[in-house]
Amino acid sequence: MLNNYWCVSSLFIHDAIIVTQNSAREVLRGNILVRDGKIESVGKEHMDADSTVEAGGKIAIPGLINTHCHVAMTHLRGKLDDISLEKFLERTFKLDSERSNAGIYNSSLLGMYEMLDSGITSFVDLYYSEEVIAKAVRESGIRGFLSWVTLDEDKTTQKGSPLKNAERFISNFRNDELVIPSVGIQGVYAAGDEVYLGAKELAEKKDTIIHGHLAETREEVYNFLNQHNGVRPTEHLEKIGFLNPRFLAAHGVWNTLHEVRLMGKNGVKLSWNPVSNAKLGIGGMAPVPEYLANGVSVSIGSDSCGSNNTQDVFQGMKFGSIWVKSDRWNPAITNAQAILDMATVNAAASLNRPDLGSLEPGKSADIVLLDTRTPRLMLTDEITAVSNIVYSADASCVSDVIVNGRLIKSDGHLAKFNSKDFQDAEFV
Amino acid sequence: MLNNYWCVSSLFIHDAIIVTQNSAREVLRGNILVRDGKIESVGKEHMDADSTVEAGGKIAIPGLINTHCHVAMTHLRGKLDDISLEKFLERTFKLDSERSNAGIYNSSLLGMYEMLDSGITSFVDLYYSEEVIAKAVRESGIRGFLSWVTLDEDKTTQKGSPLKNAERFISNFRNDELVIPSVGIQGVYAAGDEVYLGAKELAEKKDTIIHGHLAETREEVYNFLNQHNGVRPTEHLEKIGFLNPRFLAAHGVWNTLHEVRLMGKNGVKLSWNPVSNAKLGIGGMAPVPEYLANGVSVSIGSDSCGSNNTQDVFQGMKFGSIWVKSDRWNPAITNAQAILDMATVNAAASLNRPDLGSLEPGKSADIVLLDTRTPRLMLTDEITAVSNIVYSADASCVSDVIVNGRLIKSDGHLAKFNSKDFQDAEFV
Repeated sequence: MLNNYWCVSSLFIHDAIIVTQNSAREVLRGNILVRDGKIESVGKEHMDADSTVEAGGKIAIPGLINTHCHVAMTHLRGKLDDISLEKFLERTFKLDSERSNAGIYNSSLLGMYEMLDSGITSFVDLYYSEEVIAKAVRESGIRGFLSWVTLDEDKTTQKGSPLKNAERFISNFRNDELVIPSVGIQGVYAAGDEVYLGAKELAEKKDTIIHGHLAETREEVYNFLNQHNGVRPTEHLEKIGFLNPRFLAAHGVWNTLHEVRLMGKNGVKLSWNPVSNAKLGIGGMAPVPEYLANGVSVSIGSDSCGSNNTQDVFQGMKFGSIWVKSDRWNPAITNAQAILDMATVNAAASLNRPDLGSLEPGKSADIVLLDTRTPRLMLTDEITAVSNIVYSADASCVSDVIVNGRLIKSDGHLAKFNSKDFQDAEFV
Repeated sequence: MLNNYWCVSSLFIHDAIIVTQNSAREVLRGNILVRDGKIESVGKEHMDADSTVEAGGKIAIPGLINTHCHVAMTHLRGKLDDISLEKFLERTFKLDSERSNAGIYNSSLLGMYEMLDSGITSFVDLYYSEEVIAKAVRESGIRGFLSWVTLDEDKTTQKGSPLKNAERFISNFRNDELVIPSVGIQGVYAAGDEVYLGAKELAEKKDTIIHGHLAETREEVYNFLNQHNGVRPTEHLEKIGFLNPRFLAAHGVWNTLHEVRLMGKNGVKLSWNPVSNAKLGIGGMAPVPEYLANGVSVSIGSDSCGSNNTQDVFQGMKFGSIWVKSDRWNPAITNAQAILDMATVNAAASLNRPDLGSLEPGKSADIVLLDTRTPRLMLTDEITAVSNIVYSADASCVSDVIVNGRLIKSDGHLAKFNSKDFQDAEFV
């Protein structure tokens, strides 16, 4: 049955609670028609299609978007926990430099199935060997925004120039339906001004985003400060002309209010990684209310399986929301709608992909159904839907996942995933 | 098949990664034999039994224990979010006073299925009308530690004296296999010394625990302080002789180090409710490292669906752990083993039930299997099992749940739960 779905050109989703995430944030009970990878209609009408999914009151949401991860590190799950940040970074860098292509491929494919299984239809990845990860993207059917990491040549195990490697990767994968290549940057602790400006130039030339770490840890910020006469990293990046709307910065925990304003003024986007930031004990919470107040688009990233240890945006939404409330002693400082926006429309804006993040005619058909027959979602109606997505739902509620019009998960089962395929596979 | 399991007298679980939670915290690959509601053996041997569960490398853990909730409030999910604490409490108290028995029963039953579905085999409840909730316990097959709440007569809608109601409930339900009645207490804002001491006397007479709120919000603590010449609630409870090893206190956020020490000295137990505390923005985190350092047994509670909005101990473990790490800027301040202990052996100790919380011969057979064929648990081995339970697993991984030797959930399906049974049901 699933193999048929995989290939059908039109699909009718019947009788769902549709959380449209359109500009009015409408939630309505109705139907969705998908044709040739696009949403053709959202409404009350019954339409003919090659196949029908009987939603029976399930909640339909735009596919969740994970805006920061290192999917090839999925095999590190459970291996780097409960140690100091110093030891964590040391072990991670060492393990990262000893990978085989087979290990990168298998780890990535497993991580992509984990994401699809929990309702993520797009993710942003920062790593090297992205051409290997791209193959896993095609195999799994997820949408991968793959940023080839650049950094100083003397600080990497990449062969050749990271900037040239990134350019080659982007040139080879232009205009793929599921693989969207872009420029990555490691962070100020590993990349000098030349690399930053080269990355920006490359992104402009190839019309891609730039994705990289920014102000994650105290140590990286204070080391930089000491080496740059008290100038902070984000201030410095503004000075050299790097800050620009293509830049999707991950973390942004150790930014001052002045730096937050610089990001807002220059159109920089933030991928907030609440679970990873907390678990690594990097100190404090990213100043999310201040980012939002200064016009920075905030989305949610999982970060790697070494520091999260899942690639789960439901956890990111719930923990992110309650962390802000707790941090500011104010349960009303954020709300479920603002948090769901982060995982959908804000993320789509950060990727310059207005076709993603909402369920509206003409948009790409990335759709997730949440099962309201489960105990934890059973009493959901149009009024409680958004709250229940953010505060109650988890991966166990995800019954159907559609990416680009293809039904990847159906009635709780991932079509192409078979745990036996991974037995005895190489993961390092 | 499930109906057979429900009644079998012996059950053999074959080939699991067994996280025993025994005193050596052994994790071993092997088998578990269950007979007449008890664990008969844990080890490598193959045994004959009426039925066999082929675990095929699934992780076996002791059933999780949720040490604080109000299960009858499950219907409030999604209805009290993102508002001030004042408004939250006001609305909750109003809604709580307008319940029907049918509403209490159906809400409770739905909440119990939610807990069983996510690997919880025992829960502690604080509410009135516990005789109605007890019926839902029997129907669902979960283990319910039901604390009938006591408070001043002029502050309740209970008919008659809450202490007498509690005594009647405890007398009627003595020695039930699944229903374990006990004395509840609302908190210092609603119960005077007479009720506290009456509750203690009743608990001693009937040999039960006492379960109640303590130092949850700033407001309740500072109101008390103002009315008691600067004496703090927990100090006061010690002074009047209330603090004792039967007392399982929920929250304990706004306790000073002096009060933490008083709790340790008097054998009081803490039910920590990290998700609820954060979501309500009550200010800061309970001083968990200090509780542990002072010998207080710390376990994990979900609190109600109005403030969590799930009854999920996996979320409590993961969020609790990363919150402590973040709060103290130290990822090594706690570890997965200490957190899993909270949800299992610590909780069992808090309930004075050494037969629960570990997988050892002679213990009660409350066992949960986590599916290692899921993407998020697939690479788990004996070394990473504990980390992956705490940081990676969620309800989507729970495939089998056994309570008191009965298989309640099998291969992902709750035996007795049918969402249709709840259609058009009364929940208020």
